[in-house]
Amino acid sequence: MHSEAKSKPATVTTGPIVGSRKIYTTAPERKDIRVPFREVALHPSAQEPPFRLYDTSGPYTDPEAVIDLDAGLPKLRADWISRRGFATVQGRDVRPEDNGFAAADMLVPPCLARHEIRAGAPGRLVTQYEYARAGVITEEMIFVAHRENLGRAEAWQGAALRLADGESFGAAIPHFVTPEFVRAEVAAGRAIIPANINHPELEPVIIGRNFLVKINANIGNSAVTSSAAEEVEKLVWAIRWGADTVMDLSTGRNIHNIRAWILRNSPVPIGTVPLYQALEKVHGDAAKLDWAVFKDTLIEQAEQGVDYFTIHAGVRLAHIPLTARRVTGIVSRGGSIMAQWCLSHHRESFLYEHFGEICDIMRKYDVSFSLGDGLRPGANADANDEAQFAELDTLGELTKIAWAKGCQVMVEGPGHVPMHKIKANMDKQLDTCGEAPFYTLGPLTTDIAPGYDHITSAIGAAMIGWFGTAMLCYVTPKEHLGLPNREDVKAGVITYKLAAHAADLAKGHPSARLRDDAISRARFEFRWEDQFNLGLDPDTARAFHDETLPKEAHKTAHFCSMCGPKFCSMKISHDIRDEAARVAGLKEKSAAFNEGGRQINVPLVVPEPVARE
Amino acid sequence: MHSEAKSKPATVTTGPIVGSRKIYTTAPERKDIRVPFREVALHPSAQEPPFRLYDTSGPYTDPEAVIDLDAGLPKLRADWISRRGFATVQGRDVRPEDNGFAAADMLVPPCLARHEIRAGAPGRLVTQYEYARAGVITEEMIFVAHRENLGRAEAWQGAALRLADGESFGAAIPHFVTPEFVRAEVAAGRAIIPANINHPELEPVIIGRNFLVKINANIGNSAVTSSAAEEVEKLVWAIRWGADTVMDLSTGRNIHNIRAWILRNSPVPIGTVPLYQALEKVHGDAAKLDWAVFKDTLIEQAEQGVDYFTIHAGVRLAHIPLTARRVTGIVSRGGSIMAQWCLSHHRESFLYEHFGEICDIMRKYDVSFSLGDGLRPGANADANDEAQFAELDTLGELTKIAWAKGCQVMVEGPGHVPMHKIKANMDKQLDTCGEAPFYTLGPLTTDIAPGYDHITSAIGAAMIGWFGTAMLCYVTPKEHLGLPNREDVKAGVITYKLAAHAADLAKGHPSARLRDDAISRARFEFRWEDQFNLGLDPDTARAFHDETLPKEAHKTAHFCSMCGPKFCSMKISHDIRDEAARVAGLKEKSAAFNEGGRQINVPLVVPEPVARE
Repeated sequence: MHSEAKSKPATVTTGPIVGSRKIYTTAPERKDIRVPFREVALHPSAQEPPFRLYDTSGPYTDPEAVIDLDAGLPKLRADWISRRGFATVQGRDVRPEDNGFAAADMLVPPCLARHEIRAGAPGRLVTQYEYARAGVITEEMIFVAHRENLGRAEAWQGAALRLADGESFGAAIPHFVTPEFVRAEVAAGRAIIPANINHPELEPVIIGRNFLVKINANIGNSAVTSSAAEEVEKLVWAIRWGADTVMDLSTGRNIHNIRAWILRNSPVPIGTVPLYQALEKVHGDAAKLDWAVFKDTLIEQAEQGVDYFTIHAGVRLAHIPLTARRVTGIVSRGGSIMAQWCLSHHRESFLYEHFGEICDIMRKYDVSFSLGDGLRPGANADANDEAQFAELDTLGELTKIAWAKGCQVMVEGPGHVPMHKIKANMDKQLDTCGEAPFYTLGPLTTDIAPGYDHITSAIGAAMIGWFGTAMLCYVTPKEHLGLPNREDVKAGVITYKLAAHAADLAKGHPSARLRDDAISRARFEFRWEDQFNLGLDPDTARAFHDETLPKEAHKTAHFCSMCGPKFCSMKISHDIRDEAARVAGLKEKSAAFNEGGRQINVPLVVPEPVARE
Repeated sequence: MHSEAKSKPATVTTGPIVGSRKIYTTAPERKDIRVPFREVALHPSAQEPPFRLYDTSGPYTDPEAVIDLDAGLPKLRADWISRRGFATVQGRDVRPEDNGFAAADMLVPPCLARHEIRAGAPGRLVTQYEYARAGVITEEMIFVAHRENLGRAEAWQGAALRLADGESFGAAIPHFVTPEFVRAEVAAGRAIIPANINHPELEPVIIGRNFLVKINANIGNSAVTSSAAEEVEKLVWAIRWGADTVMDLSTGRNIHNIRAWILRNSPVPIGTVPLYQALEKVHGDAAKLDWAVFKDTLIEQAEQGVDYFTIHAGVRLAHIPLTARRVTGIVSRGGSIMAQWCLSHHRESFLYEHFGEICDIMRKYDVSFSLGDGLRPGANADANDEAQFAELDTLGELTKIAWAKGCQVMVEGPGHVPMHKIKANMDKQLDTCGEAPFYTLGPLTTDIAPGYDHITSAIGAAMIGWFGTAMLCYVTPKEHLGLPNREDVKAGVITYKLAAHAADLAKGHPSARLRDDAISRARFEFRWEDQFNLGLDPDTARAFHDETLPKEAHKTAHFCSMCGPKFCSMKISHDIRDEAARVAGLKEKSAAFNEGGRQINVPLVVPEPVARE
């Protein structure tokens, strides 16, 4: 089991994920760019090299790394960023309202780790989008190209391609991802690399439908404030199991300080909804929000290093009446806050009206847009309705403005959608938003299973991922009911990893099926430990196995508890293979077959059936 | 919480499912036919009648029922069956091999409940298929028609239809199910009512793509024998949460006696794989199987009252070499047993060769066929391969033979299939098997998540259910790893209920969305108890809610723990609705709107946006 090491100043989970070890490989184009992976060593009988896995867990799973939350993570991107010549700025002072007016004795201490605050200048390249448009391949692009290939060489990857046979619905996944391909996709707006220039600790990740499907996990302090270390642990726990990005949805007290602790210790992009903090600053009264407090919050968070902002600028005044007949009205927090603002002032959304200025601020730090779907359906009854699609039209309009301003953009999507209405969402989003990456919450395919909405939504998530969604926002079993605990977060992350992988498989991603096949071979050959370790959650798989067959000897047994030794179909299947070979006098070839990794062309001949007596 | 009543001779779970009560309504066509449902009483503020649910749980959830395992359940069908004039027969004697040669001190006692053993005669109607073809509407057909309508009248059901807007892929679901419609569907072979004439305790259920999607749960004693009462409890537990049928996959000792206990106490159809018991009778040596021992087992189980048999007659000798290059070979137990038999004798399957005789036996008792997919893929790599589809072609051929012999037939399907290959399975099955109901295991859409295969498979199950599969065989979290315990069985059943419901929604089943909308209204109106009780698992939903907000007062709170009172989007949405109405001077109409159940046509007018200053 993983160790819960006592690190300074508090506990986060460290140590390898069972059955794998951290490795780093260097990008062929730039030997100074090291990309992390995990490798699962297989049983010698497999005669297979270690299996390499995409890894989001950061230095926390590296036994060599010294984890010190006070110091923050190593600044992987520091040199890359500093060479780009951004100005170092003073930075905005922290004010009492930034921490929700927390009293001194209730205040989480400020983050001790520091970073130089930088800002881009007008007329000079800042964002990954601008670099890409200018034909410049950034270090981040090289990093993600190597990462998407799982650090494998082109020839190897080409071999994997032969296995892939998906239906991509117009996605164009290359057999091998080059930095130039990454640049072209970012330049086209089809992919983003959320990477604030004030988040040097980031291990870059790419989000776009021609890449592996990504998942996001939400964390947050909610009403009862936890300590900074507890908040960092939520992040560490979510990325340990595979979250590609994490959204910090904290509200109330201490959120500035907690956010700093998270950012300085996060190897994954951090997203936020600045509107939540802005609302805290006006004591929770939506009517008191204005452009000034919102702008101040954007700058505050951008300087801290937040990588993407959810901006609910698509909730326009004219859309609000379209929701009045809905079964569940407006269910997005951001959407309902903005709707309340619009109605109480009887005017157009200040986010919509100031959208150009928002772009200018976000461009300055390369904060990516996540255009919020404030009018997403909260019930299957409300799916694909006028309100939702009117907002999506506006999001398409805003996408193009943001691109014109040099910003990276993704677009958020629903929500609650029955299966037969899912594809229309994807198609409309691609069409309306010029192929900007889609980032959906689920969708939940039925409303009737509170307590199981990680599953109702995984069905929709897998499908919409297959259709082209670039990132899936997880849903935990506690959705609609309460705050997710540690086990809920893990259940949500693992469930979404499997949904994303199912989508990759169905799209025909060349490297997706390798893992399925590796685990299936392990299963067929009774390599129990390999089966556990190649899975998404080795601890749970092993624990489930050991519940019925706890002995160590059972980990090498050629049967399992389900059927017992006598009935094991896999064992019989092995016998059949041997028997078929024997019958045809192919015993020798069969041995070669078994040793040679199933690639030998053995025509198994079975005799004609004997006539019945 | 449900009570774990101490009943005689041992414990099974009884008592109402929290938040609902058992009701019975009579079929309009036959006042003596009472059909069970459950009803959820809603909070008075809802001003809605109690919500009625399909109910599979049998008398166990009826507080009025006296549960006595020794006596067995009431024989609901006794009169219906006896009026059909079947001969009462002596019945086969129980032999030591029927219970796996269990020694006296290890023997589970014989079931005390008795039933008269009956058998149909050649040339006279026996099966539901034969009655349907002859134009006769049976009591079972009336029962299922009323059950599928949730006991509602036609006019009511027609109103529900207005909500439905699915994509049915050629299914033709009527807005109201009449007994004549049921008869026509059974006669066409598009639906079956598994109902052995020796299972009078059965509450009939219909399986076909023009009806609600059904789910099956597997139970079994495995190697370590449990007591009969423990086995009955597995059944009771599975149907409590919604299993429409249960397969008893027991092996080893005591299986005859356990099966009798299960059947006499089962309100749902029981399926088995007779081959498993036949193999026990020949001491586990597949080569020693023959037609005589198999035939004997069919008769033994048919006389006991098993409602459907999985028969792996599609595993032909010529198909076996097609599996040799697979990643996981043959993974079906029945399939691998038959393959081993074929190879060791170098001859065609005795199941295939004796298929006509098998039909004659099954027809005699109206045991339905579940034509087994012995060559289903056990890995995504093997999906839709030559072996699988060659067997499916054979199953199509056998379907037509079974129909010609007067039998009811459904056809089993995979297994492990990536999303993009699922629809081809359904389309080919419909085409090859003349629209006989499809009954699939999952399929699992990826192989990489051992410990979470209830979810990898729920994705595939929801999709293939939408495409036309009539019944989904559940998968538990322990799949591939171990034996499911009580919590795993519940997780599997609930997961499959939500998948089946998602399929019904997407198909446009007229009564499916009613439940989603009812729960969504409860959610929007902060009727927490209603939200829990309308869900598939009220206990878990309530427990999750109470983890964060345990106080009783919080069950009526207009917020939840996720956002707290200040940030609640639903609360804001209510404010918006009020505000929008106020602005437009429609306060009065709004009140009427709120009282009138959202059907009043209120044109919510919002003023034009004020020009920006």
